[in-house]
Amino acid sequence: MSLAELEELAGEIRELILTTVAKNGGHLAPSLGTVELTLALYSVFDFSKDRLIWDVGHQAYTHKILTGRRDTFHTLRTLGGITGFPKRAESPFDSFGVGHASTSISAALGFLIAAEIEQVERKVIAVIGDGALTGGMAFEALNHAGQLKKNLLVILNDNEMSIDKNVGALSEYLSKIRLKPQFHRAKKEFEDFVKNIPFRDVGQKILLAANSVRMGVSAAVFPGAMFEAFGFTYLGPIDGHDIKGMKDVFSRVGVINAPVLIHVNTKKGKGYAPAEIAPEKFHGVGKFDKVTGQVIKKKSPPSYTEVFAQAVIDCAARDEKIVAITAAMPTGTGLKKFAEKFPRRFFDVGIAEEHAVTLAAGMAAGGLKPVVAIYSTFIQRAYDQILHDICLQKLPVVLCLDRAGLVGEDGATHHGAFDLAYLRTIPNMNILAPKDENELRQMIFAALHKNSPVAIRYPRGAGLGVEIKTEPEEISWGKAEVLEQNPLSEIVIFAVGTMVKSCVEAAKLLRDKNIFVDVINARFVKPFDTELIKKSARAAKLLVTCEEGTLNGGFGSAVAEFLADEKISTPLLRLGIKDEFIEQGTRNELLDMCDLTAEKISQRIIERLNELIFGFLTVAT
Amino acid sequence: MSLAELEELAGEIRELILTTVAKNGGHLAPSLGTVELTLALYSVFDFSKDRLIWDVGHQAYTHKILTGRRDTFHTLRTLGGITGFPKRAESPFDSFGVGHASTSISAALGFLIAAEIEQVERKVIAVIGDGALTGGMAFEALNHAGQLKKNLLVILNDNEMSIDKNVGALSEYLSKIRLKPQFHRAKKEFEDFVKNIPFRDVGQKILLAANSVRMGVSAAVFPGAMFEAFGFTYLGPIDGHDIKGMKDVFSRVGVINAPVLIHVNTKKGKGYAPAEIAPEKFHGVGKFDKVTGQVIKKKSPPSYTEVFAQAVIDCAARDEKIVAITAAMPTGTGLKKFAEKFPRRFFDVGIAEEHAVTLAAGMAAGGLKPVVAIYSTFIQRAYDQILHDICLQKLPVVLCLDRAGLVGEDGATHHGAFDLAYLRTIPNMNILAPKDENELRQMIFAALHKNSPVAIRYPRGAGLGVEIKTEPEEISWGKAEVLEQNPLSEIVIFAVGTMVKSCVEAAKLLRDKNIFVDVINARFVKPFDTELIKKSARAAKLLVTCEEGTLNGGFGSAVAEFLADEKISTPLLRLGIKDEFIEQGTRNELLDMCDLTAEKISQRIIERLNELIFGFLTVAT
Repeated sequence: MSLAELEELAGEIRELILTTVAKNGGHLAPSLGTVELTLALYSVFDFSKDRLIWDVGHQAYTHKILTGRRDTFHTLRTLGGITGFPKRAESPFDSFGVGHASTSISAALGFLIAAEIEQVERKVIAVIGDGALTGGMAFEALNHAGQLKKNLLVILNDNEMSIDKNVGALSEYLSKIRLKPQFHRAKKEFEDFVKNIPFRDVGQKILLAANSVRMGVSAAVFPGAMFEAFGFTYLGPIDGHDIKGMKDVFSRVGVINAPVLIHVNTKKGKGYAPAEIAPEKFHGVGKFDKVTGQVIKKKSPPSYTEVFAQAVIDCAARDEKIVAITAAMPTGTGLKKFAEKFPRRFFDVGIAEEHAVTLAAGMAAGGLKPVVAIYSTFIQRAYDQILHDICLQKLPVVLCLDRAGLVGEDGATHHGAFDLAYLRTIPNMNILAPKDENELRQMIFAALHKNSPVAIRYPRGAGLGVEIKTEPEEISWGKAEVLEQNPLSEIVIFAVGTMVKSCVEAAKLLRDKNIFVDVINARFVKPFDTELIKKSARAAKLLVTCEEGTLNGGFGSAVAEFLADEKISTPLLRLGIKDEFIEQGTRNELLDMCDLTAEKISQRIIERLNELIFGFLTVAT
Repeated sequence: MSLAELEELAGEIRELILTTVAKNGGHLAPSLGTVELTLALYSVFDFSKDRLIWDVGHQAYTHKILTGRRDTFHTLRTLGGITGFPKRAESPFDSFGVGHASTSISAALGFLIAAEIEQVERKVIAVIGDGALTGGMAFEALNHAGQLKKNLLVILNDNEMSIDKNVGALSEYLSKIRLKPQFHRAKKEFEDFVKNIPFRDVGQKILLAANSVRMGVSAAVFPGAMFEAFGFTYLGPIDGHDIKGMKDVFSRVGVINAPVLIHVNTKKGKGYAPAEIAPEKFHGVGKFDKVTGQVIKKKSPPSYTEVFAQAVIDCAARDEKIVAITAAMPTGTGLKKFAEKFPRRFFDVGIAEEHAVTLAAGMAAGGLKPVVAIYSTFIQRAYDQILHDICLQKLPVVLCLDRAGLVGEDGATHHGAFDLAYLRTIPNMNILAPKDENELRQMIFAALHKNSPVAIRYPRGAGLGVEIKTEPEEISWGKAEVLEQNPLSEIVIFAVGTMVKSCVEAAKLLRDKNIFVDVINARFVKPFDTELIKKSARAAKLLVTCEEGTLNGGFGSAVAEFLADEKISTPLLRLGIKDEFIEQGTRNELLDMCDLTAEKISQRIIERLNELIFGFLTVAT
């Protein structure tokens, strides 16, 4: 394709992305930023043979459109449709599935080593944003790549943004490279200087941008000194919207027999004014009006996120030991408001969940009361730090896990389905899940007074619209809350968090069929209300647990353990997410698939009741 | 204290460490390397006020001896004695508990922020090795620290070693700083050059080693350019055995109002010739003869580690797609032998478990069959990568988790108690545990043919001395192995891994009391043998599960879930590690504490039998 054709294609792709995301929601700004970059990559490399790995993958829409998914792109992020992230099962061009940040360099290195061992001629390219580069594992991979000295190509897609404005020393460093003219002047002067320094050949080699670290100190003065120190040849920065310029550089890197990092400057939201102006708003966005850029909002109660943020702000106003930490998500977690009120007590550490958790442990050991707000799926990164740094030392850190349970359209990589199960394995951990947004507020109050490790998990999106009590109400630690009780009941449901409402509704459906069910809000997954479970189990014909999380090791599992340990043989029906990864769809579609709607819950209970009644026959056959 | 007195004290401490470790085992080489460093730190800072955080903590013996633990130091690493790592409960001078690598900078930053918010004047110092610096979270912390610009002091204890020889581009970079005279010459020349460059003041400031990154490119030419890029002022390298030199530098850093990294060169094993010569052997060492440096070995069967390594070598000889990865543990995991045979198929990535796992995922996606060998406790770091990169994509990576279960003297931070539980939460994962070293070999064969994610966990130390079958024997996937069966049995034990032998012995003890017990080797924790459990449960009066791992979410939990789901009400006794962190002691002491010896297992079964027989009475009272 000619340059003019490529530029025309860029316009068409941009329009398709914009139209589709306006309708389906999605990662608009990141994907608009990489249209030209993707076209340049596809013009130079042959990805039927070469391998392209997108970090995070929210910028890969152009890649999808170019690789056989143009016609189905309108199904983006819908049930059974095109996924929002690269996914191996979807296309051979999706070399490596992604969703979480900072994995691309590791994976790319894996492909490169495989190609070498299999003796296949193949170029492997990782595209990583300046945001994802703050994740520690990206540095682990740079460190390894630099030592292996294989011809890995890393493209640093620098848009100065993580989801929000990027943070950290590295980000400052990259800005300096981008912006300071004196920086470039110094480079020029230094090049002249290097030409004249006495030790051999070095000056010339630097100018050729060869693998310079091996040559000693001199190349370190290049803008990419940090990457050169890791053994990479640094090239850039170059304009990430100039297809011709990128093609020129990409086609020449083949000759460098060493890992290369090309620094590409892009603009998040490029080509769509509202997204260029507010890239954080259009990072991951719901449906919006393409013309005005207005996000289409249904009128809805305050979100859990908003209620969380306000609760922490209210606590922090009374107790100056309270500090808040997020990992590149000040907007997403709601802590932006906290940051405005208490800038000196707010810490955005970048995409660095491990550091976030251990930083909090250090703060707690130093006498503070840190609140760490990270999405459920992302805090998986810090399992060891939660165990080894917080819980082993029993430090009072409050982990607030937003987007727990099924998140909907982001799909398998993003569901917060495992938190109850993996956190429950850790001694000294307390785990809470609120039934509504007011209870979330109350739980935050209680957690900040507990002086112990606490995790509170709550779902994405709007609350239930309940009244929010400003003043603290008592949450009795480890105790469940009886919501529905009927002397006729022979069934007791212990429901966790979001499932409380569904189970109350299920109980209504069952009552219509003359089946009476008590509903208990578990509140605590650890320590859970063993006394009430024991009492209920002794009285009921059937116990039910219901949670928006994996059944393997989750709350129902804890109850099964407990019943076994207590020699209680009351039948137990465990409702939750089966031992499989759940794909994308609307939250309601997915809840239905997982038998977690009121309708399905009531059906499952009826089925189990039938089995109980006719169970003897079943066993006998 | 005068310098002479400090040097005399250094000698005494070294002697005490040497004598104690020769008797108790421990981390000799790291702690011998930091005697002078610790003395210099204690001479300059006041750690009743200031805070000192040791990364990993295996180098902190001098610190312990100096802070009230000289007289009890002989109890090092014994049950109830001084722990091998800093531990908050042990001393107020142990600011932050450690054991796993790369946490110190995060924690130190937490302390610094806490001091600032609490308005306490306090210096905070993190001491991190060049090995631990390869862990990604250390970089996450550097990135954050550099942005915050607080006066954190990081001491880089560079001994060119992780546990084995350190690896990675960073390591090469540090070596360059240490070794190349031209490097230093270039620095001098560059300093002269900088003095004369046109833009303002910069040259002078660099010479003052002020926070140089903000000034643009020029300071980048210093040997510490990488750290300068992160916003640190770099000083060094200085001699880590020269107390006077270190005191001089340490006492002057107070004036720099920015994060500072002091690069200190130390020698692992310093002052004890056998450890200087073979620091990897004396990194963590058992009892040895102080005079000869000979490690006191009991004659014992090949270790699980050795059998693992040989099995992978044998497989790799037949299948060149097999590659092996370790995270800084070629010796500890046994892969050193693999590396010698197949240097191009062996990858030591440094202390970088996250990268190790995703690298393996990339390799598997590229067509290879990677084996990743990491200690159970350390692979906790990669929970998310196992979930998101391996299992979500169902990639054929074989994770070999050495040191699973109770590891003994290293204590709470090092037990591999959680692996069965947290791995079980992940869809598509297969989890195996061998009853002996031959079964480990057979499981490795089977796992490498499975074409799916597999984790095999096995204990520290010697195997049982069974015959090792060279050729593959069939391991039927997901099936348990019936070991002891008696028509009189009313009890069936499903034992996992190490507990198989203990349960067989327990069965013997019970038989002497006329209690007949079937013993089944579970082999698979996921997918486990549901058919056999169902059959056993229907026939038996009591099912028992026994595992060297946490009860919360572990194998017994899986069985409890299954019984509940299948509406089987056979009583279940779950034996394993309670929901608490287990301290140090010999493995046997700890197994006894956890009721996991044959004697205790048989007792617990008898207790439960009594409850079953008299249970009605218990319930009625």
